[in-house]
Amino acid sequence: MAGLYPREFLAIPGPTPVPDAVLEAIARHPIGHRTPDFSKMLMSVVEDLQWLGQTKNDVFVLTASGTGAMEAAIANIVSPGDVVVSLVCGNFSERWAKIAQSYGAAVERIVVEPGKPYAVDALRTRLQADKDKTIKAVTITHNETATGVINDLGTIASLVKAHGAISIVDAVTSFGACNVPIDEFGVDVLVCGSQKALMLPPGLAVIFFSERAWKANAECRSPRFYFDLKKYKKSIGEKTTPFTPNVSLVAGLQASLAMMKQEGMGPIFVRHERMKKALRAGLTAMGLELFVGEDAASPTITAIIPPHGLTVDSIRKSLKERFKIMVADGQEELKGKIFRIGHMGYVFDRDVLMVLSALEAVLTDLGHTCKPGAAVKAASSLSK
Amino acid sequence: MAGLYPREFLAIPGPTPVPDAVLEAIARHPIGHRTPDFSKMLMSVVEDLQWLGQTKNDVFVLTASGTGAMEAAIANIVSPGDVVVSLVCGNFSERWAKIAQSYGAAVERIVVEPGKPYAVDALRTRLQADKDKTIKAVTITHNETATGVINDLGTIASLVKAHGAISIVDAVTSFGACNVPIDEFGVDVLVCGSQKALMLPPGLAVIFFSERAWKANAECRSPRFYFDLKKYKKSIGEKTTPFTPNVSLVAGLQASLAMMKQEGMGPIFVRHERMKKALRAGLTAMGLELFVGEDAASPTITAIIPPHGLTVDSIRKSLKERFKIMVADGQEELKGKIFRIGHMGYVFDRDVLMVLSALEAVLTDLGHTCKPGAAVKAASSLSK
Repeated sequence: MAGLYPREFLAIPGPTPVPDAVLEAIARHPIGHRTPDFSKMLMSVVEDLQWLGQTKNDVFVLTASGTGAMEAAIANIVSPGDVVVSLVCGNFSERWAKIAQSYGAAVERIVVEPGKPYAVDALRTRLQADKDKTIKAVTITHNETATGVINDLGTIASLVKAHGAISIVDAVTSFGACNVPIDEFGVDVLVCGSQKALMLPPGLAVIFFSERAWKANAECRSPRFYFDLKKYKKSIGEKTTPFTPNVSLVAGLQASLAMMKQEGMGPIFVRHERMKKALRAGLTAMGLELFVGEDAASPTITAIIPPHGLTVDSIRKSLKERFKIMVADGQEELKGKIFRIGHMGYVFDRDVLMVLSALEAVLTDLGHTCKPGAAVKAASSLSK
Repeated sequence: MAGLYPREFLAIPGPTPVPDAVLEAIARHPIGHRTPDFSKMLMSVVEDLQWLGQTKNDVFVLTASGTGAMEAAIANIVSPGDVVVSLVCGNFSERWAKIAQSYGAAVERIVVEPGKPYAVDALRTRLQADKDKTIKAVTITHNETATGVINDLGTIASLVKAHGAISIVDAVTSFGACNVPIDEFGVDVLVCGSQKALMLPPGLAVIFFSERAWKANAECRSPRFYFDLKKYKKSIGEKTTPFTPNVSLVAGLQASLAMMKQEGMGPIFVRHERMKKALRAGLTAMGLELFVGEDAASPTITAIIPPHGLTVDSIRKSLKERFKIMVADGQEELKGKIFRIGHMGYVFDRDVLMVLSALEAVLTDLGHTCKPGAAVKAASSLSK
């Protein structure tokens, strides 16, 4: 039994582990938000987010979860009747389509089966066929949290840019874990959340907004107030926010971004890539089937098909009860079909070994035959 | 000089002081939000909020600041073209009108000059004249944060209910500080924020939603997704939230509501009323002019006109530099004309004496003549 003492280890796709230094920053008594001290904090966060996104685009911090920033993206770009192409490879990319439909867009989905990356060729064909340039925006989920697929954002964003449509990107579970050079990729709107690779509790979202996005925004007729980015743009010019921000989480974000600058962008991305490979090697050595092929494997989330005869529930329950390690079920039609391990943000090589070891113990108990130590051996050979 | 050590004392209208027990709850490592532990926490918060609001209405916790909940209220009730009557007595009640306009409503304002409470008779006349029942909703700010005015919510809500329109109420700076019996008043939609009398940092908002509000919601055509309350209703049936919530602040809210239950609703309301009276008596004894008359004086925010010859800036700056006490300027057209002291939530009689004493010291320095000790004497005689 895990006992009373150990903290839950969050090997789910979010919330993710939060460093003590960040918890300490959040635990400090909030300061007033209309003060020079808060302005200084906010502007440091803006600067560091632009550093991480390798961009000169505007960036705004919203007091909301990631879906709030997704809604902000749509409400500030898409008007009723606009044609929106939604690339769909899972539950979270489908969310873009649903939000755009809520705002009255004519949504065209380009769907692939779960576990596969986007059909880039189908998008290319659709964009080329759009001679009249009726497509207003293309929605893209960089890293599909529901399946653990990473899409080729660079290629997709450049196709969209060449067409002239606005690229709207969910980078919730990729930003801060792998390279997302916003300006180089030519991404127009990009959103992410606090509780992923940014190493914070949930409650903040971030949205990047390009010059081209502002031009589209000028024509946008959708209603908005709390998520009206023009208000954020005006306020950031005065080093503040239009509405009371979550000052505690902004302080936490300042602390986590400072840690990320200290580690360095390159080492962070290499660490995530290495953990992904080590984890996948370990899982494979345990005789488990991975849901996503090597080419599209996410650096932050790995989905596994349970061994024949074992249920996702029993595996999750045993990991929680024996080790207080939390992994996630599949969502919607994938519920019970896969389980998902998150490995982003404040997660290190030793955590990968821990999760593999615990999984080996649990699967063995449940009757799955795995060669003792094979997983750790395979993973550790890649953890260098 | 205040020196380096003391924590800022937030005598602004929010964020307000946060108890250590609440900071400690927030500082704990976040737990997963799709777990029985989080469900238990969320349902305890829902139950305690219903206790505080004395209501059986649905209540939802949104990861957003108060304005987000205001937008949720409008987006879930008001469709383009609907007639909305907005009672306006300051900057925050004006915000309701602006949000409703963003959503395409035909907004009729009933405006009074800042510092005065709503014109209840004018509302009564307008509602009586509306024989065809074209008015869809009436927006009301219970406690106007911009001026320190409290409005007669009971009377106003009953007029609106008798007419058949939906009452939409901002109780951001009243809920948890004074009596807001939602069912007895017949209020349909009521919003509040975390960083006020609920004694939390900013980042959460709460919205109560009545049966009549649901009926109106069924006809509402405004676009919404993150703030779509039907999604929250469905999720709360499963003891969860539709989107990742700020689990840390929900833990904090559980802790602060536990404290409020321990103190008791009656004692909390009496404490706020007593502090208001003591503060006003002290300020008057100092020869200061109060911006709002006794009848409409807010239990949580007091606005003061600076003595002749002194600027709001100089008073705020001195309080901050000498004592690290933060008070607020006026907003918009009241900027520089009044300063505002917040006294809600985790604030006690001794804090009122502290603020009065510090203000006496500062005003004396700046050249205002006040009888030494008169303020504390007047206040303390009421602080029993």
